This record gives sequence, C-alpha cells and structure tokens, in this order.
Amino acid sequence: MQFKRTIWPHPEQIDNIQIIDQRWLPHQLIIEDLTSYQEAATAIREMHVRGAPLIGATAAWGFYLACLQTPWEKRDQYFSEVVSHLQATRPTAVDLFHALDYMEAKTATAKDQKELTSLARHAAEEYTEMSVAQCRAIGEHGLEIIKRLYSLKKRPLNILTHCNAGWLACIEYGTATAPIYLAKEAGIPIHVWVDETRPRLQGARLTAYELGLAVVPHTVITDNSGGHLMQHGQVDLVIVGSDRTTRRGDVANKIGTYLKALAAKDNDIPFYVALPASSIDWSLSNGLAEIPIEERHADEVSYVQGQNSSGQADYVRISPKNSPAINHGFDVTPARLVTALITDRGVCQASEEGLKGLFGEESAN
Amino acid sequence: MQFKRTIWPHPEQIDNIQIIDQRWLPHQLIIEDLTSYQEAATAIREMHVRGAPLIGATAAWGFYLACLQTPWEKRDQYFSEVVSHLQATRPTAVDLFHALDYMEAKTATAKDQKELTSLARHAAEEYTEMSVAQCRAIGEHGLEIIKRLYSLKKRPLNILTHCNAGWLACIEYGTATAPIYLAKEAGIPIHVWVDETRPRLQGARLTAYELGLAVVPHTVITDNSGGHLMQHGQVDLVIVGSDRTTRRGDVANKIGTYLKALAAKDNDIPFYVALPASSIDWSLSNGLAEIPIEERHADEVSYVQGQNSSGQADYVRISPKNSPAINHGFDVTPARLVTALITDRGVCQASEEGLKGLFGEESAN
Repeated sequence: MQFKRTIWPHPEQIDNIQIIDQRWLPHQLIIEDLTSYQEAATAIREMHVRGAPLIGATAAWGFYLACLQTPWEKRDQYFSEVVSHLQATRPTAVDLFHALDYMEAKTATAKDQKELTSLARHAAEEYTEMSVAQCRAIGEHGLEIIKRLYSLKKRPLNILTHCNAGWLACIEYGTATAPIYLAKEAGIPIHVWVDETRPRLQGARLTAYELGLAVVPHTVITDNSGGHLMQHGQVDLVIVGSDRTTRRGDVANKIGTYLKALAAKDNDIPFYVALPASSIDWSLSNGLAEIPIEERHADEVSYVQGQNSSGQADYVRISPKNSPAINHGFDVTPARLVTALITDRGVCQASEEGLKGLFGEESAN
Repeated sequence: MQFKRTIWPHPEQIDNIQIIDQRWLPHQLIIEDLTSYQEAATAIREMHVRGAPLIGATAAWGFYLACLQTPWEKRDQYFSEVVSHLQATRPTAVDLFHALDYMEAKTATAKDQKELTSLARHAAEEYTEMSVAQCRAIGEHGLEIIKRLYSLKKRPLNILTHCNAGWLACIEYGTATAPIYLAKEAGIPIHVWVDETRPRLQGARLTAYELGLAVVPHTVITDNSGGHLMQHGQVDLVIVGSDRTTRRGDVANKIGTYLKALAAKDNDIPFYVALPASSIDWSLSNGLAEIPIEERHADEVSYVQGQNSSGQADYVRISPKNSPAINHGFDVTPARLVTALITDRGVCQASEEGLKGLFGEESAN
C-alpha cells in the first residue's frame, strides 16, 4: 500500500497536516494539505475525511494548527471559537467532542506560546497513536470471534459490512475491518459483502478500495441486497462500526445499519458492532431519543458522483428536478438487535452491564 | 399528462405497438415502436418496459406481433419458439407466463391467418383492459384502507413505497400507487416517501416522475432511510407491489422490499402489498424456496445512470474497477410480515385462507 495512514504531519513543514482527500477515491488518490484549523474544519464538514475515529484525529490536529495560529494573549477567547467551529462540523460522531476535550485538557498547563504548540503537537500525536492502538485491539478481539465461527463452519466465511469503518475511517486497521484484516493475516478464508451505502457510497467507493488494496475477496452489493443474502444463508456474520454508542449499547451508525440489524435478527445471524472507547457517549442512555441525527444536503441523494464515460470525475442527476429529497446521515440500532460490541477492551453485551464490565471507571463519568 | 398509458397500438399502423422507453425517464420521454415479437422481447429483457403488469401486457402484444409474423403453415413450431423467447426475458414476474398462456388459449381456435391476427389483437386489447380494470379495483380497495387511517389520524398521511409499482409499471393507475392516486382524487392529504430503489433507481426516476406529474407531494429517500423514518413516527403505512405472490401470501418484489417489511413490523406500521390476480402463482407455496430470483448484470450496481452536468444522459462508475458486484433483482417477503394483500377482488390476509376467500375457483388451479 502506498499510504498506511489517513492523516499525518508533514515530515518537514511544522504547520502542515496531510490527509487523503477521500472524496475522489477510488478513482483518484489526492493528498491535501491542512494549514489552518479552518481547513481542518472544512475537511471534516465537507467529508474530505470521515469516519468517527478519523474525524476525532482530524479535530485533534486541527486544534494543534489552531495553537500555531493563536495569539498567546487572546488564547482563551480564541480557543473557545476554535472549539465551537470544529464542534459544529458534524453533530453525530462523539469522537469529535472527545478529541477536543482531550486536546484542551492536555494543553491547559501551557505557560507560553512555545509550550502550547509543543504540548498540542504531542497530544495530537498521542491521540492518533491511541486511536491506532484501539483499532488494533478491536481487531484482535474480533479475530477471536471469527476464529470460533470458522472452526465451527469449516468453510470460507461471508462477512457483511455497511458503510466504511475501515482504515480510511480511522488511522490504521479500521474498526469493523480490523478483525477482517487480522483474519486475512491469520490465513482464515473470508469474503466480504460490501454494502454500497447510499447516498455517499462509502462502501462501494472506500471499503471496496481498501479491501482491494489488501487483497481481501469482496463483492459490492446494493444496500437493498443484504436481507436476501441473509435469507439464503450467504451471510455468516455482520460487522459494522459506530459513530456514537450510548451507555446502554444503542448504536448510531450510517443510515441503513438498523435495516441490516433487523435482517440479521430475523435470520439468526450474529450482528456485531466494532467500536473504540472514544465512540461511547456515557451521557446518553436511549439512542433513539437522544442521539442527534445529522441531516445533510439533499443533493447527495439527487445526484451520484463517480467517474464518467471519459474517465473524468462527474456526477449524474438521478431524480426529476422538481422532486425534493431528504438526507438523514445516520440511524440508531437499538441494543436489543446487537449480538455483542467488539471494543478495544474486549467483547461485551450491548447493554449497560456489558459496557460497565469493560469500562468500569469511565462509565461513571 | 401527455400520456395516459405505457403501451398502446399505433393508431394507424397495424404492425406497430408503441411504448414509453422508460430507460430515459425522468430526463427524456422517448416513445419506441415495437414491430416484431423480438423487439417486444428486447424491450422486456432490457427493461424499456418493466413492472409485472406491463411486462405481461407487453408479452401479450408481443404475441400479437408474432401472429403477424407467423407463416400460417408453420405456426405450431413458430409459436413454441415465440413463447420460449418471450418467457426467457424475465424469470421472476409471473404475469409474463400468465399473459402468454392467455394469448395461446384465446387464439387456439383460429382457422386461418386472418382469424389468428384478429383473435390475437382482440385478446391483447382485452388483456390490457383487464389489467387497467384490475389496477382501478386495487385502487378502490386500497382507498378504503387509507380513508380509515385518515379518519383515525386526522392529519396528512405519510405513505412509503419501494420501487415503481405505478402506472409506469402497469398500463394505468399502477398497483401500489392506485390507492394513492384515488386518495389524491378524494381529497385526502398524503405525502409519499419514495425509496430510490437501487440499482436501477425506479423509485427516484419513475415513481418520483409519476407522482410529480400527478402533483402528489413526495420526497425521494435512499433505500437506507425507511427504517429511520419509521422509528421516528414518520411513516403511517407502506404499500408496495408484487412481481409474484405464492398461494400462501409470500411476495417476491424488488430487492429491498423485505428490509422495509421487517422495519414496518418492528415499528408496528401496516405493510400492504397491492397486486392484481395475475401476479398470483397458485403453483407455489413457499416463496423463499420456490420463487426464482433473477440475477441481472453486475454493471447495474457498479455504474449509475442519469443526466450529467451538461444535461446529457451519461453514467458514472462508482466502485473500483477491480471490485466485483452482484445484482439480485428481487427478494421475497414472507407472508408473516405482510399486514394484508390489496387485490383487485378486495383486501385479504396474506395467507392461503385469505387468498382462497377471494379467489376460490382460481386457487384450485
């Protein structure tokens, strides 16, 4: 793979954080320079980067860029502006808020501009490495589940995933894909059903691209197909990511996740959610009532982007000009439909007890 | 509306049947001439026309064209070729087989070429009018359901539909849309959630177009969205069509229908299937095990057609070139998830008893 990560500090320029601008994948690999927190905010809002863990890391690095931009004497007012600006980019992924809290706490003791910058850079690096380690740990715990199922079925396993909770949504490994990549490394034969994931097609564009680079056998399907495949025994397990998880184990993830969870339940297929601790929002109990669901621009539904017949990036309008559309970004899968949560601390029931068992001290926050 | 029907005999040319080539809607309205049964077969196979009732009617008119092409002395061999050719176009919609049986029966007594042609034309006209009358009757029975719900809720009703089971799938009125059009005429305030229906986007392209022409308020949504809307009380009922219904009330319809039925069940929302008698296959009991599911070309998943930025018909590739895709056209919704069937004979339970109550004599076939 040419790039192992989705975000990294420029090796020479102190005020430059580089990202893969994922809007052009899989057709073009474009690297973008972020040189201000405003550019980091735009990258999050306009989905140059996406995926809860990567949104968190980009916010952390955005905060670092803000430290470089901050006039020392005005830092209090400036920081509250920076944080509001970054927080306003995407309302659903709680990692965004966690990352900013983390950066504020880690830089609070700075006594001058130089120390502020140095603490912020260190904190952003630390946040990034923590996120990588979490994904790796999710992969290891998820691998155990795959190993058990493989020893039971003794044939290649079919895993269905929705959206992109891969390394492109994180820094490395991914969340939902981490067990898949580790299973591949461990020599367990797997095949992945990739939900295309309308409207933005993160599955068809990003998950398929990732799995292709990693030479994992996969097939792209429409979001409508998973139920049919499950009815016909062609799905052995489902693994998806999470943008926000409540203390009771309700999961907000890309719109359409709930439908796959219902189909998995109806067909007795295990439905796992892979998530780092950073995606848990201990302040929320009832996901359906409490998790804010982002409404994005209707044009993402009315138009489809891709590569046209001349090989150029283009879009096509699919619906009549006068037909309105609506675009909810996420839905909530109630804990009752989730077989288990695969976290960086281990696997647990999607329930308050399950999460408390793994995250005792944090859950009291 | 410029066109009230989807298929009609040319007013002057005896060997010309005209259709709307629906592949170019909603961006272009193109009328196509069918002058041979082979052209009719291509129109069905390549989806210039689609929707179970319209497939049936096109096959009936295709049979009529075949009668014009038939050398009288070779008619037996020729007809068996014609019928196989037309039957091979689309495997899931049973109307196709019913229509061809009907045409064969109605022309069996012909004693010469002239009588054959005349009987065939008459039979195709009769088949078409029967189909229109069935849709109108479905509309009337479905209207009663909408009226009852409206008198209960006393506010505009939100109806979700999947794919296109509108007049474009039929000749007039449609099946799933017939109650909607009659409710609109009756002054009941309704709003329709239109599932875009990947891969071919019949919802975004055709249902939205139809509803727009009829000035019915509607909003296009991705196929992923229905569950979320149902969780939040924004869907009052679901009405979909059927490509084939078993004697026990299992329903094969556009891929993804099953997922919406699961979500409706999970949220206590009534889920209705509107269907003409012609879609019932009395020879089948267990839909999941017995209904053949068409697998279409993977390119329908990998590419999306529409109108490009210059206003031209074009397509964009969405997934990586090396990522395979698979394209199942239909899925089966088990009878247990269907609140009731709305047929041209009335409304009944999705069960053998329910169907027998309405279709006593036919069910013995």
